[in-house]
Amino acid sequence: MKLQRIDHVGYAVEDLEAAIAFHERLYGAEVAHRETIETDGVAEALLAIGPSFIQLLTPTRDDSPVAKFLERNGEGVHHIGYGVADIEATFKELQDIGVRLVEDHPRPGSRGCTVAFLHPKHAMGVLVELVEDPTLEGRPYDPPGAASAHPRT
Amino acid sequence: MKLQRIDHVGYAVEDLEAAIAFHERLYGAEVAHRETIETDGVAEALLAIGPSFIQLLTPTRDDSPVAKFLERNGEGVHHIGYGVADIEATFKELQDIGVRLVEDHPRPGSRGCTVAFLHPKHAMGVLVELVEDPTLEGRPYDPPGAASAHPRT
Ligand SMILES: [Co+2]
Ligand SMILES: [Co+2]
Repeated sequence: MKLQRIDHVGYAVEDLEAAIAFHERLYGAEVAHRETIETDGVAEALLAIGPSFIQLLTPTRDDSPVAKFLERNGEGVHHIGYGVADIEATFKELQDIGVRLVEDHPRPGSRGCTVAFLHPKHAMGVLVELVEDPTLEGRPYDPPGAASAHPRT
Repeated sequence: MKLQRIDHVGYAVEDLEAAIAFHERLYGAEVAHRETIETDGVAEALLAIGPSFIQLLTPTRDDSPVAKFLERNGEGVHHIGYGVADIEATFKELQDIGVRLVEDHPRPGSRGCTVAFLHPKHAMGVLVELVEDPTLEGRPYDPPGAASAHPRT
């Protein structure tokens, strides 16, 4: 397995709009994508940072994992997303070396990606998400939006 | 100010060699750089992840900030490093909008970079480092090592 890139840093935030405004003001970051994932109980905004993202996450209900994180820790880094080329192969490789994954199979994530989470105790205390982004097709370093400027041939 | 890239994710770890071995085994990550920064009381290893790094940090003495972090939190994400094109200009811009920075001026970081830290309370609970990498010269997305393969013209 090879990590291709830091796909995103996931922040847990209390107020999504305030967090977006904060990142726009402080960092000139722009919203590239918004999505609500009902099964995870989160609303998210992705801010483009070069070829990567800051993922702002806020709970949509009290029993969502992000709500529990905020209760325990307050706002801060919730997880790190690393990009891989082939999530199915990566998942099997990790299972083979005995790494515990949160779910039994890779599953849909936001923006059309397929993702899998590693248990923090298997990743040095950090909640790690592995992300296969189908839009990248082996071009992991292009910034978002570059596809239209440089059509694939 | 515009963030160019996620430069690195900084992990605080108890045992640097064990953490390197762990990342090599799990993620196929390779050590791109090692450095001991006496003034910060840390030894670090940078693992190349595409154009970014995982920065593994371990204290070299008991009164180092990373030692205190480990005491309070255990191993985990210590800070996030974002790349900027011009650290001096960025520093002034942030001061002008009232953002509190940890030091009075940008200062040398590892691998020849110039860096500045924002107070976590000014960055949504996250310790944020801004990094100007002089080797990038406006080519923020090239993976490490690309400079020799593709000489600048
Ligand atoms: Co995520
Ligand atoms: Co750092």
